[in-house]
Amino acid sequence: MNILEDANHLLPVAGIQLATAAAGIRYKDRTDLTLIEIDADSTVSAVFTQNAFCAAPVTIAKKHIAKITPRYLLINAGNANAGTGKAGLDSATACCEAVASEFGCTVEEVLPFSTGVIGVNLPVDKIQAVIADLSIDLNPHHWLAASKAIMTTDTVPKGVSCQVSIGEQVVTFSGIAKGVGMIRPDMATMLAYITTDAKVEKSLLDECLNNAVAQSFNRITIDGDTSTNDACVLVATGQSKVVISDSNIKEFQLALDKLSETMAKALVRDGEGATKLITINVSGAQNINESDRVAYTIAHSPLVKTAFFASDPNWGRILAAVGRAGVKDLDIEKLKIFIGDVCIVENGARSALYSEALGQKVMNETEITVTVQLDRGNAHSKIWTCDFSYDYVKINAEYRS
Amino acid sequence: MNILEDANHLLPVAGIQLATAAAGIRYKDRTDLTLIEIDADSTVSAVFTQNAFCAAPVTIAKKHIAKITPRYLLINAGNANAGTGKAGLDSATACCEAVASEFGCTVEEVLPFSTGVIGVNLPVDKIQAVIADLSIDLNPHHWLAASKAIMTTDTVPKGVSCQVSIGEQVVTFSGIAKGVGMIRPDMATMLAYITTDAKVEKSLLDECLNNAVAQSFNRITIDGDTSTNDACVLVATGQSKVVISDSNIKEFQLALDKLSETMAKALVRDGEGATKLITINVSGAQNINESDRVAYTIAHSPLVKTAFFASDPNWGRILAAVGRAGVKDLDIEKLKIFIGDVCIVENGARSALYSEALGQKVMNETEITVTVQLDRGNAHSKIWTCDFSYDYVKINAEYRS
Repeated sequence: MNILEDANHLLPVAGIQLATAAAGIRYKDRTDLTLIEIDADSTVSAVFTQNAFCAAPVTIAKKHIAKITPRYLLINAGNANAGTGKAGLDSATACCEAVASEFGCTVEEVLPFSTGVIGVNLPVDKIQAVIADLSIDLNPHHWLAASKAIMTTDTVPKGVSCQVSIGEQVVTFSGIAKGVGMIRPDMATMLAYITTDAKVEKSLLDECLNNAVAQSFNRITIDGDTSTNDACVLVATGQSKVVISDSNIKEFQLALDKLSETMAKALVRDGEGATKLITINVSGAQNINESDRVAYTIAHSPLVKTAFFASDPNWGRILAAVGRAGVKDLDIEKLKIFIGDVCIVENGARSALYSEALGQKVMNETEITVTVQLDRGNAHSKIWTCDFSYDYVKINAEYRS
Repeated sequence: MNILEDANHLLPVAGIQLATAAAGIRYKDRTDLTLIEIDADSTVSAVFTQNAFCAAPVTIAKKHIAKITPRYLLINAGNANAGTGKAGLDSATACCEAVASEFGCTVEEVLPFSTGVIGVNLPVDKIQAVIADLSIDLNPHHWLAASKAIMTTDTVPKGVSCQVSIGEQVVTFSGIAKGVGMIRPDMATMLAYITTDAKVEKSLLDECLNNAVAQSFNRITIDGDTSTNDACVLVATGQSKVVISDSNIKEFQLALDKLSETMAKALVRDGEGATKLITINVSGAQNINESDRVAYTIAHSPLVKTAFFASDPNWGRILAAVGRAGVKDLDIEKLKIFIGDVCIVENGARSALYSEALGQKVMNETEITVTVQLDRGNAHSKIWTCDFSYDYVKINAEYRS
C-alpha cells in the first residue's frame, strides 16, 4: 500500500466533488468556505469532540446525521461558531438551509462544520452570499483547493491519498485535515474528511472509523487543549463496486488506519510553532490507562517540549515527567527510558552507557522517538506530539490581533 | 497580622542562624551553599515531593528526620543530585558528614537539600571545601544572603516575615523559598524554609505544616511539572516561650497559612517568564476533585496562558478548557465564568452584558482572577498560576547552555 502524502496530488474519489469560495468571514483574499458533495447511496460516519462546550455546528451535525445520510458537508474557516448559544444554533441551521435550497436537498442532509475563533457570531449573510458560487465550482479534482480553504493557523495544507488492492480490485481513499493548535483530540480531532469509493454499510463504517481514530487522531497532542469543534468524517461512496464485508475488512481497516495515522502525524508536524515530531512509546504498563498517563505526562510537559525545541538532551526533564505521572508504586530500578536508540535511564539513574554526545546526536534529529519501558505489565501506548517554541507563544499571543 | 514580604528585611527568629558560601558548584561569582542552624530543643516538620524519581537528598533527608530532630539544614543550588542513583545517595551523605564533623553533631542531625540541573553528579569536594567558611559566617541576621544563595532561575529572592500576637505574647515567623519552574508541587513545593520562635510539639507542628502547605504551596502551578526535589521545612525553636496548644492553635495556624500563601504566590509571580499572577476560583463543584480538575485544566492550558500574556480577552479559550476538564454531565446552561468582576459566559454562551472593552480592561491588569461557578454542588478550589511568555521558552530552551 502506497500512502501519498501530498495535498497537491490527491486522487479523485468516485462519488465525491468539492468546491470552495471566499466568503470573507474573517480572512481577506483567501478562500474560507468549502463544500463537499457526496453522491446518493454513499454511507457516512462521523465522530465529534467530547468537549462539553461543543460548538453549535457540532450539535446540529450530530442531530442531522442521526436522521439521514448526509449529501453535503459545509465547512467554514475563521469562525468556530462556539460559545454562541441559541444564536449560534440558528446560524448553523441557516447555513444548512442555504445549501439545501441551492442544491435541492433537505436541511438534514447538510452537515455544518466551523473552525476558527470562539465566541464570535457567525456572519451568516456572508456565507449565504457565496453558496451559488460553490455550485459552479463543484469538481472531483478540487481537493487541493478544499485542503487550503479549511486552514486556520495551519502553515501547509494537509491531504493524503492511497490506493489499496482488496481481493483483485482497487479501492481509493483521499482525505484532508486541518488543525495545529487546541489539539488534544478526545474521540475526534479538529477537522478531518476522509473519503473512499469502497462500499461499506453504515454500522461497519462506524466501527472502522472508531478503530482508525482511536489509533491516530486520538493519539496526538500539540498543546493538551481539546477543541470545541473537533470532527472527523468518513464517507464511503461505494462507486468502486468493492463491497467491504467480514472477509476483506482487515485490508480496508489497515488502509484506513495507515491513512489516518499519516494525516494525524501531519497535523502534529505542522503543530503551532513546532520544529520537531516526537513519538512517545510507553510499554510494560499494567493497563492502557497507566501507559497513556505516562505518555501524555511527557507529551504535555512544557519543560520536556522546550528541551526538544532547544535540541537539548536534558533527559532529567523526561525522568521527572515519568516520575510525576502518578503510576502507583513505580519501581524506578526496573524502568528504562530511551531517546532514539540511546538508553538514558536504567537502574534508577542515568545509564552507565549514556553520554552527552550520544544524546545530542538524537536530539539534533527532527523526528525523535522517546521510549519508556515500565516492566510491570503488558499494556502499551503510542502517541505523537511536537516541541514548544518561541513561535508557539507568538502564534497564540497574536492569534486574535 | 502584618505580613512583611521583603527579603531585605526579614526578622531574626531566636534559635535560628544562617550562613552562606560560594562553592562554585555550577555558578561562578555567587553564593550557592546555605546552612541553617537550629538550636537544640526545637521541633522540625518537613514535607517532600511525591515524584517517584525523588532526588538523593530527599531520600536521605526523609531517613534522617525519621530518626532524630535536625540541627542543620544544608542546601546547595545549581545541582539537583537527582537521577544520580547510588552515587547520588553517597554524595548527599558525604555532605552531611562534612557538616557533622565541623559542627560536632551526628550525621542524622543534618538534612541535605539540592536544587538545580538533574542528572549531574554532585561535586562533593567543592562543598566539603567551604564547610569551614559556613561556620564563620553563621549569623541570625543572614536571611537575605540565604534567600539569594538558594536561587536558581529565580529573578528575585523570596522571603516573608510576620509577627502575630498569641494571647498577650508575640510570636515571630520568617521564611525563605525558591523555585520558579518545574512547579506544580505535590505535597510540597520546591524549597521553602519557615521558622518560628513559638514552642510547638512535633505532632502538632506536622499537622500545622500539612494544613498550611495544602492551601498554599500545593495550590500553585507554573508549568504543571512536579519537581524531583521539592521540600518544605517548618522549624519551631520555642525560644519565645509561647507554647502552642489546642487553646491558641487557630491563631498560629492562621499566621502560618497567611505566610505560606504569601510565599507561594511570590513563587508564581516570579514564575519563569511570568508577567501576570492569575488566581483561579472554582466553586459549586460536586467534590474537590472536580473543582481541582477544572481549576488545573484552565491553569495548564497553554492557550489560556498565552492569551493572558498577550492581555487578550480571548475568553473562548477559558470556556474550551472548562469544557474539556472532564466534568461528567456538565450543564453548560447553569455555568458562569468571570474574569475579574466581568461575566464572560452564562446561559451556555457569551454573557449578554459582556463587551470586548470590559474584558480588555481586566486583561490589562497584572493580577487577574478567573472565577468559574459550576452550580452543581458545594465544593470549591482556589489555585494560583501565571501566564506563558516568550521568556518561558527562552529560559527553558537555554537553561543548560
